[in-house]
Amino acid sequence: MRALLVLGLLFAVSAHAEDGYDLWLRYRPLPAAQAAAYRTHTTQLVLDGATPTRAAARAELLRGLGGLLGRAPATAKQLADGAIIAGTPASSPQLAQLHLDLRALGDEGYLIHSATVNGHAATVIAANTDTGVLYGVFRLLRLVQTGQPLEHLDLRDAPREKVRILDHWDNLDGHVERGYAGASIWDWWKLPGYVDPRYTDYARANASIGINGAVLNNVNANAAVLTHEYLLKAAAVAGALRPYGIRVYLSARFSAPIEIGGLKTADPLDPAVQAWWRAKADEIYALIPDFGGLLVKASSEGQPGPQDYHRSHADGANLLADALAPHGGIVMWRAFVYSNANPDDRAKQAYTEFKPLDGQFHDNVLVQVKNGPVDFQPREPFSPLFGAMPKTPLMMEFQITKEYLGFATHLVYLGALYEEVLQSDTYARGQGSTVAKVVDGELEGHRLTGIAGVANIGADRDWCGSTFNQANWYAFGRLAWDPTQSARAIADDWARMIFTNDATVVKPVVDMMMASREAVVDYMTPLGLHHLMGRGHHYGPMPWDDAGPRPDWTPVYFHRADQNGIGFDRSRTGSDAVDQYAKPVADGFNDLKTIPDTYLLWFHHVAWDYRMRSGRTLWEELVRHYTQGVDEVKQMRATWAKLKGRIDAERFDKTAAFLGIQQDEAQWWRDASIAYWQSLNGLPLPAGYAPPAQSLAYYKSLSFPTAPH
Amino acid sequence: MRALLVLGLLFAVSAHAEDGYDLWLRYRPLPAAQAAAYRTHTTQLVLDGATPTRAAARAELLRGLGGLLGRAPATAKQLADGAIIAGTPASSPQLAQLHLDLRALGDEGYLIHSATVNGHAATVIAANTDTGVLYGVFRLLRLVQTGQPLEHLDLRDAPREKVRILDHWDNLDGHVERGYAGASIWDWWKLPGYVDPRYTDYARANASIGINGAVLNNVNANAAVLTHEYLLKAAAVAGALRPYGIRVYLSARFSAPIEIGGLKTADPLDPAVQAWWRAKADEIYALIPDFGGLLVKASSEGQPGPQDYHRSHADGANLLADALAPHGGIVMWRAFVYSNANPDDRAKQAYTEFKPLDGQFHDNVLVQVKNGPVDFQPREPFSPLFGAMPKTPLMMEFQITKEYLGFATHLVYLGALYEEVLQSDTYARGQGSTVAKVVDGELEGHRLTGIAGVANIGADRDWCGSTFNQANWYAFGRLAWDPTQSARAIADDWARMIFTNDATVVKPVVDMMMASREAVVDYMTPLGLHHLMGRGHHYGPMPWDDAGPRPDWTPVYFHRADQNGIGFDRSRTGSDAVDQYAKPVADGFNDLKTIPDTYLLWFHHVAWDYRMRSGRTLWEELVRHYTQGVDEVKQMRATWAKLKGRIDAERFDKTAAFLGIQQDEAQWWRDASIAYWQSLNGLPLPAGYAPPAQSLAYYKSLSFPTAPH
Repeated sequence: MRALLVLGLLFAVSAHAEDGYDLWLRYRPLPAAQAAAYRTHTTQLVLDGATPTRAAARAELLRGLGGLLGRAPATAKQLADGAIIAGTPASSPQLAQLHLDLRALGDEGYLIHSATVNGHAATVIAANTDTGVLYGVFRLLRLVQTGQPLEHLDLRDAPREKVRILDHWDNLDGHVERGYAGASIWDWWKLPGYVDPRYTDYARANASIGINGAVLNNVNANAAVLTHEYLLKAAAVAGALRPYGIRVYLSARFSAPIEIGGLKTADPLDPAVQAWWRAKADEIYALIPDFGGLLVKASSEGQPGPQDYHRSHADGANLLADALAPHGGIVMWRAFVYSNANPDDRAKQAYTEFKPLDGQFHDNVLVQVKNGPVDFQPREPFSPLFGAMPKTPLMMEFQITKEYLGFATHLVYLGALYEEVLQSDTYARGQGSTVAKVVDGELEGHRLTGIAGVANIGADRDWCGSTFNQANWYAFGRLAWDPTQSARAIADDWARMIFTNDATVVKPVVDMMMASREAVVDYMTPLGLHHLMGRGHHYGPMPWDDAGPRPDWTPVYFHRADQNGIGFDRSRTGSDAVDQYAKPVADGFNDLKTIPDTYLLWFHHVAWDYRMRSGRTLWEELVRHYTQGVDEVKQMRATWAKLKGRIDAERFDKTAAFLGIQQDEAQWWRDASIAYWQSLNGLPLPAGYAPPAQSLAYYKSLSFPTAPH
Repeated sequence: MRALLVLGLLFAVSAHAEDGYDLWLRYRPLPAAQAAAYRTHTTQLVLDGATPTRAAARAELLRGLGGLLGRAPATAKQLADGAIIAGTPASSPQLAQLHLDLRALGDEGYLIHSATVNGHAATVIAANTDTGVLYGVFRLLRLVQTGQPLEHLDLRDAPREKVRILDHWDNLDGHVERGYAGASIWDWWKLPGYVDPRYTDYARANASIGINGAVLNNVNANAAVLTHEYLLKAAAVAGALRPYGIRVYLSARFSAPIEIGGLKTADPLDPAVQAWWRAKADEIYALIPDFGGLLVKASSEGQPGPQDYHRSHADGANLLADALAPHGGIVMWRAFVYSNANPDDRAKQAYTEFKPLDGQFHDNVLVQVKNGPVDFQPREPFSPLFGAMPKTPLMMEFQITKEYLGFATHLVYLGALYEEVLQSDTYARGQGSTVAKVVDGELEGHRLTGIAGVANIGADRDWCGSTFNQANWYAFGRLAWDPTQSARAIADDWARMIFTNDATVVKPVVDMMMASREAVVDYMTPLGLHHLMGRGHHYGPMPWDDAGPRPDWTPVYFHRADQNGIGFDRSRTGSDAVDQYAKPVADGFNDLKTIPDTYLLWFHHVAWDYRMRSGRTLWEELVRHYTQGVDEVKQMRATWAKLKGRIDAERFDKTAAFLGIQQDEAQWWRDASIAYWQSLNGLPLPAGYAPPAQSLAYYKSLSFPTAPH
């Protein structure tokens, strides 16, 4: 009977095998010898499940070790050799008597320590809070998942960012703006009557990488989310996420007092408006006592905002902040603003508008700044606001979904992009003033800090639309916890958890991931080019586009190419965007002799025959980069093909198919771009480079009315 | 090592356990004694996998028996005792020498026969085609899944309908019109580069119940689906479905020659239009050699159609039919037409328009008729077109998605509805001329026959949004294969495959399912009432609605209630819709003495104090039915609660939550409806009935701008 049961399960398993749902919490069996070694350190578990969070921690450890080692530890109240003891001193007398120094761990940190407790060799996971314990449990599981030893552990870790949050651009009708992984996971219609167990798996995955907040709805917000009906729904989601240390936040529409409040104005200085928001905050906290706060996109891209009433962004942010403050909530106020009516360089406008407001925001406001000054391009210099508002805590906004980077099917590891931005030096307080130090509060001593990632999550079975898109969610979380970590090390962890600890798989996968970001820059927007994507949907190349509703949404606005040259002159002879940076950075960007090639055409308009450091002309270098981008994708494809049989068929085949799509589209990007530049400069291709496969007219004729956006 | 591996798998399984993805092909282990008995009949399998369809059949049998019995049969070329031998005489010499009489089985039928072959006791599955073999394999699996004996088998089965098809109302952007189970499963954006393995599981599920066609896109069609780009995508889907005997069909927009063809007209008599459709058909068949044909909604609810050119529906249908005919394709032309400009009873208009066209449609046209004369209500009389167009093959259109029946969360088993319609007697050729006999061609000797179901499938993990919604897909398929089957027997099979063979679970589940359809009729639209749902989205009660764009979309149009009475007079003194039926039916409906209570207010306007057969007044009877509907849901909920622990937690909890929602909404339907009728008739509630929980003003104040539709 047992044998039969087992065989039956084998079949049942194969039906579900490796569809990606488990993310990096796969917990598949380790090789026998390795599992046996770990089992000596995991004989039993002393961790009471008296609170929802400790119960979640215990369940995860049993599930994880049970899967990885083939045997879950016995749960026990007393220690034995090889035990794991986990908890807080307040809840565990056994831990309390160890007199561990937990002061530096704060509310969310943990330690993992190999110790002798009551004469027994044990692994101690301790924290000041249940959430810290949960994080420690996930860390221990990660050690096992990635094949690290459990001997002589002496780990201490605590997050460097306070708010580590996913922004879901999910509409109430289930559509995800810039989402490429199916509909929203939030089934608003069935909430609160039905709370999908998927929300718990979402929370598990996020907690495992330290994410502690989720904005449930789109920044282009529907005021209805603040109605009582929807707050009940959000409260039900909050109930599912709470055991995992994750708070719910909502995006607020600034004009909500009019739309759902029946007021005639949303003027932030109007007492009735202030009273409405205070009452709304009271209502929210009555339903969701640990509600995190509000995210706001206001006076931006057509959204209502304080400027409708000739008030400043600080007036708007403080209105909401004051309503939330009595409850401990925060406001995340986005600095993504620019105006078609403003003739100045779009890349300069957020700085121009926000820098003068430094010092005017109340204590519970974070100003949320996109990583670059334009909009989530394959590569941008860091936003000049980082370092420019010392009195204001600035929150980083990264995009995890790949709006401008090929949607779901292109393999682009964004850890490399995030790392590049975070390690950029603002020189705000001299050398070493990295963006990471701005954002984690170290530079100016801010205690309220945060990093947001625009989620790439949808109802697709694998959450993110592809296996490698999962890596971007993972890397975001890890870097939000500690922005100083290495993207490569994170990729290495991820590959081990997602595929295998076998180095002959891990190394090529990680190499491929690390190369992938430069590849997409090369085949889409090399040498500082940007925003050349198709209008509206941002799919495919459209560098010729000079139409549409707004000049500052057109590629020609950004590349400024003509017969003689190409690039946006943001130097001191141009828009002078360079001088929004600290002087050493500004000088470096301003001077053709010192600017890195990677930002050349972002800051300078140069002739096609401009001589690069390489000795090649700009035109030759451009063609070389485009071609190299395509070649890199071919190489990724070849690398992947060699892994056939080493990775389960379902995920292998899907990635292989996607790499095929990516190669076709990389070629299209290269060819269409080159054909267009040639139509302007009349230059021949450098020797040895293949001409575009089709005519420029062909590329221009393509249209994508059904592209997702 | 083995033991550890197994435990690891146990954990892996539990993570995925019973999320509904497997539908009725769960193949979970049977009890040991039962499995042992079956194993004596499944020692080995003689079935070559030389064609994609036979390979699929073999793989399914190995997977199914492996799961159910804990051991898959050995594959073999020679027989042994207890073998299963499956195939066609053409492909299997061993089968050929049995000289089985397969003539009556046609292209899709099969036989399953216990026989002695070469001295060995064996189970024979034989058919004329590979698809027949596949159907036989699924039938054998069903016998095992439902606990039937494998001794002395002598089964022969062949479908009574030629076209058994799902209509997906799926838009190219992934939205499903009237879909409540997530986005479309057709990922048009990634096709053809990536063919989701889910398409194969879709095909398996459909083949297991005999469905042999799928219309991939919405009847409110986007002409783009007929562009070359989309035909390549459809061809990739066709490639995934083909091994399972399923053909791909598309919905065509009648004005496609203008929109994607660049013509100035879509006039069906214009030679250029005819040439365009012929060329388009040639293009389709070059890409999809077994393309099924086109479904068309034309000159209906604002869709373009032949009437834009003063041509008839027959002209329109024949235009497409002639283009498809050389390739063997068919046209499914919908008869769902009515006009706001036409003052006649909406329920009469399809008949009025189509009956005169009988005999004018070309041979490869099916006219597709919704089951009732209005629009997929909880209960309607059968459409009078059934039986009224003897020279034209009429295709049944059922709705599987619950547009008017509570969306995803209400438990309503539609098998009961389908059976009621199919068993209705048209009297077209005297007593016994059931709708089933019209639709399966028996009555008039049509060889081209079909049943369509508007799919309830989406990207939700469990496909249909709830476990019990899966039963409606299942029942549709089974009844499309054989419209004479019993809904209860089908529910019984389904419950066994979905839950367990344990009668103490099966019986209450089936009882609940069979009662559920009358419950929804009672709490929404008792005694022949219809179309009282909220405007546009069709969610919740809105019987007071008299606004909106069209009178014939308002509840007041349909119920005609006032101080004195209620109901739509379609008798001979009213709109005379009754005389669209054959005389015995018409007489029965016309006469208050003979009309069943269930259709009373569909055909008659009667006084509130009209005395029913029960002795109660109409008003008393109405209140009784509303209340009974709510009570029935309470009963379903109580029944389900008793099954706790007998059904896996994930599916149990979800159904329990949904029944809670259903009970709340049933109460709302009852209370809002009663409050509104009372506002008209001023009558008190009969003794013993609770008043509505809220005021009519409250119910009228509710609005649902975010309801899915």
